[in-house]
Order: sequence, then C-alpha cells, then structure tokens
Amino acid sequence: MRLSRYFLPVMKESPAEAQIVSHKLMLRAGLVRQTAAGIYAWLPLGLRVLQKISQIVREEQDRAGAIELLMPTLQSADLWRESGRYDAYGPEMLRITDRHDREILYGPTNEEMITSVFRDAARSYRDLPRTLYHIQWKFRDEVRPRFGVMRGREFLMKDAYSFDLDEAGARHSYNRMFVAYLRTYKRMGLRAIPMQADTGPIGGDLSHEFIVLAPTGESEVFYHTAWEQDRALDVNADDAVALQEFVGALTADYAATDEKRDLDREREAGEALCTSRGIEVGHIFYFGTKYSDSMGLKVQGPGGTEIVPQMGSYGIGVSRLMGAIIEASHDDKGIVWPDAVAPYAVGLINMRADDAACAAAADDLYATLTAAGVEVLYDDRDERGGAKFATMDLIGLPWQIVVGPKGLANGVVEVKRRATGEKVELSPEDAVARVSAK
Amino acid sequence: MRLSRYFLPVMKESPAEAQIVSHKLMLRAGLVRQTAAGIYAWLPLGLRVLQKISQIVREEQDRAGAIELLMPTLQSADLWRESGRYDAYGPEMLRITDRHDREILYGPTNEEMITSVFRDAARSYRDLPRTLYHIQWKFRDEVRPRFGVMRGREFLMKDAYSFDLDEAGARHSYNRMFVAYLRTYKRMGLRAIPMQADTGPIGGDLSHEFIVLAPTGESEVFYHTAWEQDRALDVNADDAVALQEFVGALTADYAATDEKRDLDREREAGEALCTSRGIEVGHIFYFGTKYSDSMGLKVQGPGGTEIVPQMGSYGIGVSRLMGAIIEASHDDKGIVWPDAVAPYAVGLINMRADDAACAAAADDLYATLTAAGVEVLYDDRDERGGAKFATMDLIGLPWQIVVGPKGLANGVVEVKRRATGEKVELSPEDAVARVSAK
Repeated sequence: MRLSRYFLPVMKESPAEAQIVSHKLMLRAGLVRQTAAGIYAWLPLGLRVLQKISQIVREEQDRAGAIELLMPTLQSADLWRESGRYDAYGPEMLRITDRHDREILYGPTNEEMITSVFRDAARSYRDLPRTLYHIQWKFRDEVRPRFGVMRGREFLMKDAYSFDLDEAGARHSYNRMFVAYLRTYKRMGLRAIPMQADTGPIGGDLSHEFIVLAPTGESEVFYHTAWEQDRALDVNADDAVALQEFVGALTADYAATDEKRDLDREREAGEALCTSRGIEVGHIFYFGTKYSDSMGLKVQGPGGTEIVPQMGSYGIGVSRLMGAIIEASHDDKGIVWPDAVAPYAVGLINMRADDAACAAAADDLYATLTAAGVEVLYDDRDERGGAKFATMDLIGLPWQIVVGPKGLANGVVEVKRRATGEKVELSPEDAVARVSAK
Repeated sequence: MRLSRYFLPVMKESPAEAQIVSHKLMLRAGLVRQTAAGIYAWLPLGLRVLQKISQIVREEQDRAGAIELLMPTLQSADLWRESGRYDAYGPEMLRITDRHDREILYGPTNEEMITSVFRDAARSYRDLPRTLYHIQWKFRDEVRPRFGVMRGREFLMKDAYSFDLDEAGARHSYNRMFVAYLRTYKRMGLRAIPMQADTGPIGGDLSHEFIVLAPTGESEVFYHTAWEQDRALDVNADDAVALQEFVGALTADYAATDEKRDLDREREAGEALCTSRGIEVGHIFYFGTKYSDSMGLKVQGPGGTEIVPQMGSYGIGVSRLMGAIIEASHDDKGIVWPDAVAPYAVGLINMRADDAACAAAADDLYATLTAAGVEVLYDDRDERGGAKFATMDLIGLPWQIVVGPKGLANGVVEVKRRATGEKVELSPEDAVARVSAK
C-alpha cells in the first residue's frame, strides 16, 4: 500500500482523554478514533491488526475442534427471560424497544442464544460433543468507559460454547480450550497466565481468567515466578487423560487474582511469589447444566433416556487484545508490533520522493516485495525524512527499509529491525531476503 | 470437515413461515436460523458462504482502490443531528437510550460517521481523492420483515464513501465503483443490471441500482434484451475518459426500475423490451456536497482556498446477496452454489460407514483433497445412502464424490457435478484431479 493513497491520520501529540499508553498510541498511530463514549471506529491500520488477531483466534479455535457460526448482535428479551437473566442482568445490558414495542437488547454475551440454537438442532447423543464459537461485536454499557478499547462499550469478542454428555466430557472440552487459549496468546507474542477466578454473574463452578501482566492492568494479581518462564504447549488434546495431566501440571504453580488469593499457598511460595497488575484477555467457565436446565435443552441418550448437556463458555476479548499487546510491546517512540499481528510486515521509506533514482529503486523494491507476498506500507510521499522515520517508528512495523541517495550510490539500502533498533546496510536483493525470512 | 463432528441441522420440510424459495432453502439447508423477527443466526455452513461473498466484495473494492476500515454499529444521535437526518429518518431507524440517557442509534447507513471521521483527518487537497469502505452489520427496523435474509432487520452491508476535489473526480470515483460492482456480481455467478434509480432520502442527483432478475423480486423492472448477454468488463479504470466512455456505452441500453420508466425509450426498444421482477443487490449514489456542506467538511486547496469535497456512497447488501444467489441458482432438489461462493467445493460421501474398505478409501480421499487445499465436507456418518444423497443435493456443493463398495471393487468412485447432474466413474486419483481443476 502506498501511503500517498492510504488513510493514516497520525497525531504528533497525545489527546488529553487518553490515560494509558496503549490508548495514547492507538490514537496517535491512527489505529482508532472514538466516535461516541466507549465506541470506536477502526481506521485502516487498526482494522488490519484486528483482522490478524481475529484470524489467529479463529485458527486456534478451529484447531481445537470448535465450529464457527455467527450469531446476531441484537437478541430478543424473551430469550433472556427463559434463563432468568433478563431481570438479573444489571445496567450494563443495553435494553432497546423496537417500533412494535418489543423488547430487544444488544447482546453482552450469548449463552441463551447458543442454547436456543443448539436446542432446536440437537436430537440425540450422537450430536454431541460440540463446541461452537463466533467472533462478533458485543455491547456492555460501562458506567465509565475508559482506557480506549480496553474498556470500551462496543467491543469484539470471540465466545465459544461447549456441549457435552457428561462432566468428564465437559472437563475435556474445558481443557481443550484452556490449551487453545495459551496457544492463541503465545502466537501473538503475549505471555498470559491462567488464574482461578470467580465465575461472577455467569454462574458455574470452574473458571480461569487469562491475564497479561502490565503495570496499567485493571486488577492486582499474584503468581509464582515459575510463570515467567516460557511453557511448551505440545500435548495431544484428543487424549483426555494426557490433556488433564498437562493442564494439572501447568496449573500446579500458584497464580490468582485478587478475589481468589490463597494466603497459605502464597506463604509456601515464599520469595518466589510475585505480584503485579494484570489485564484480563480471556475468561473460561464450566457451568454444568445451568442453561440447559433452565432452557430445557436435552437430547436422547443411547438407551432412550434423556440427557441434559453439560456446558461451558469461553471468551476472548479480541479488540481488547490489541490494547494488551501494545501495553506489552512498545517503547518511547511508539508501538513495536509482534510479527504475527503487525498490520504490515515492512515499512518502506523513500527518503527523496523528488529523486528519480530513489523513486525508481523504491518502486522496484515495493513491486518485488509485494510480488513475494510480503505486506508493505510504502511511504512514497513528498515529506521530510525525519517525519517519515517518526511515523514508521510510531506505527511500529517489524521491519523498515530505507532507500536514500547515499546508500543507492553504494548499491545498498538500510534495513532496520524495529524491536531492537538494529540497522544493517544490504543490497536490495539481500534486503528482500532478510525481511522475507520466516 | 467431517459431518459427524459438524453442526449442520438440515430440515426435510419447509417451515411454514418461509414464502420464497431462497428462504425455504436457507432454512432447510441449515444455513440460517431466525432468532427474532428479521434477525438471523448464521449457522456454520451459511457463515462460510457469507465469508466468501464478503471476500469477493472486499477484493473488488480493494482492486478499485477503496480502503477498508470498520465503523461501529452504534452511533451517536448528535452526529445525525449535524446533517439534519436524525429527525428526518423514519421509524426504520432503531433509536436507543443508554444508561446515561444519551440518545444513540443502530446505524442504518454511515454517511454522517464517515464524513465525521474524514473531517477529523483530512487537511489538504493532497488527502484526496479517497474512497473508504467497511463491511459491517446494519439495522433497519422494517415494519414487516420477510423473505428471510432478503428483507431482514439486522443485515450485513458493504458501504463505501468517496471524497473528491471536484465533480469530474467524483464522477470518476462513481464510475470506478460502477465497474467494481459489475465485476463483483459476475464473480458470484450473477448477472446484475444497473438501472437509473431514485435517490430517495439519501439525497443526490445520480444513482444506479443493481438488479438481479428473479420472479420473486420485490419490484418490477424494464430493460432492453441486450442486457441478457454477457458483457466484458475489461477497462482501465485509472483512465477517467476511457472509463466514462465504457460506462456510457454500457448504460446506453435501456434498463429502469418502475419509478424511473421512460415510455419513449420503451417504445423505441419495441419488441426488444423485456419486463421482469428484480432483486436489488446494490445501490450507488453521487450526492455532491450534501454531507460535506452540512457537516462542515473542507480541505485546504493548492492555492490556499477552501475546497468542499464532493461525495458519493456505494452499498452492497452482502447478506441479501446470499438470498439472491439462491433465487438465481437452485433446482427442485436444493441449492446449486456457484463455485466462487460454495461453502465447500466437494461433498464426499462414504456410502457404507460400516465397511472398512469404503471407510479407508473415503478417509484417504478426504486426506488427499484436504492436503491439496480443496475444501471438503465429508459425510462419514452411519446413515442410509439415500439420506446422504438428499442432504448433499440440498446443500448444493458444486462436486460430489461417492465412495461405495461396488465401485471400489472396480477401482473407481463416482464424481457428480451438482449443476448438471452429470456423473462419471473415475479412479480416486482422477477424481481428485477433476474436482481440483480450476
């Protein structure tokens, strides 16, 4: 993409409303714009990151055997009356009356709807187990939206729901998602720690939150220093016993949110106990038959008896993850995108748009990289070099290639790795090879 | 995907609420389920088609130079007060009050929001021309939702907005989209006829609707028989003059909706005049400075003068297209998906799940096809062959491969083309080659 034809409104100064670094950088780097309190438009560069995060989430859900569908944003109040949650849910639920005076709502979550969809479709035990998921916009009417997309009102969430014939099956489905979540975060360059958590208004008796450590996190967390090491995630998720052992071993090290602290275990940990603030980037629940019971979901068992499915739900805050990634990966010049979620892999800078040789060499590199399938944002504008460097550092693409008259005279361009600042001079061919290497 | 692990609730009978064939088939084939009046959940098979349609739309928008972003579903009423449309818009607008008693709404379209986003970002004439688009859920509170996704309330739309420095530029942007739309429909196996149309409440003085002919269409249309021929769409869209000539030549043949009939031209057409019913699948508008004027969008011109950008908007009903495609492509057994939007390319049927040789051969074909990048839905269930055939014909995948004991004894499987019903017996290797050929 040529920057001269793109839509990338960057800002030099941080807007006053932004308190945390990810919010500041998302505004400055032209990723989002607020259009109403807690509601954001995703500008082209931000949308590309959102799509990359979504795609990683999708691939790991698919790999875990979950099946994607897409439920609508608006739901009927009657559906929520079946579970009893319409009256129980607080003012975070956006309640709407349509032109025929029917009560509807903007879905904050989808337990009721997926139970209803599954109830209409599933007949026999052979239709289970299944885990269904969607990636869809949700709305929670936060009393005080803040921190940009970290606590917005309209937000993108992946929510999955599992249906099993018995508790052992439900535990297996839960464990599958547990590992899928760790894989998902790891692919995005994040280390997320699973912590036992309160189940809250959603109900149930087994739950983990996945927390990314960041000084700006919304809650205090406590964990064993072992969690700071990288964990291998190679386990055969089809083997229920092996998977349970794996998850058991993984969670043997202490980690807990404020609400679930275990002072005995903290004493045991001694000097290995760490404390930090954290950002919740996922939450998984096993809640048994809470919804299947209240909403009358049952299937025919092998012997003709009725089975009430065991359910779980599994959420990842997709739009919130963008904020969490920036909190975890930035410096004083701007964002430092992990390769897997970067909006473009390479920022190509032509230092002298008014120099025919520079323009020809940069155009050539742009064509070569694009043909090789490398995603390039090409700053072909007639601007000062300093402004171009500042913009590229701010938007944080993993690689920068700089084409200037001095280098060209020697047959080289400059290749810079954004994360380390390391610069090398290479021939254009070697530059292409360097940024294309996996 | 193995059907034994998928979520595909097909129905033998048409539900009573469905009046038109696409609605019946979308319910029967397990593509969608209604969750409230005019609101649908997209089941896994339907979501795959929706994603394929969206991707074709996206590719042709990108090819036309439009830049993708994503605006939120909810908008502030104040934004619509700037243009004066908040009070002017009828009861189709879903008006909402949030917990702080602020007036918001579920966006039925995005002229105001994109004007506001562009106004905040664009400073100089060098920031134009630009065309921005998004693919997002919209809501229109239809008084009587019907025909399934064809006239739903929550629907997926691609809407693009162009910003130009003068009328000539705006006309060029309009023509680019005109051709991009024809390309988009053609790739989906649809022939859509552009017709001059009323601009309606959106305003402006140049507008075309794109209409797919179908007996169940919502409106009557009139056109010259020349439109029934296939049109080549190879024009250099960067050349404004050539593009204008191309669009002019294309629209020289008469075509009009009921509101825009020209009886003189119809008399001229004589026996070449055709009439039919049609489904609107796109609508493009040039409306000049209607929103830039009322909302104060202006940029600095080259000489320091202020320029008020000329705008246009361009909509495609993405979810509605699925209905239109089915109306145009089905038979008495079910849907006949065009290859480009089929949820899977191949339906693989194992006739005898209880026969080890059949299962091994079918598993093998499944693995080979999947490894070759072919999307396969594999019916590995222990069901009668007749039921499997009926399901495959109903869901309308372009190719079927049937593995049965008799054929296997002779070293062959059966390959059927859904559209023609043509069947051939081929070795498994040749079957793979046949369904993989582009």
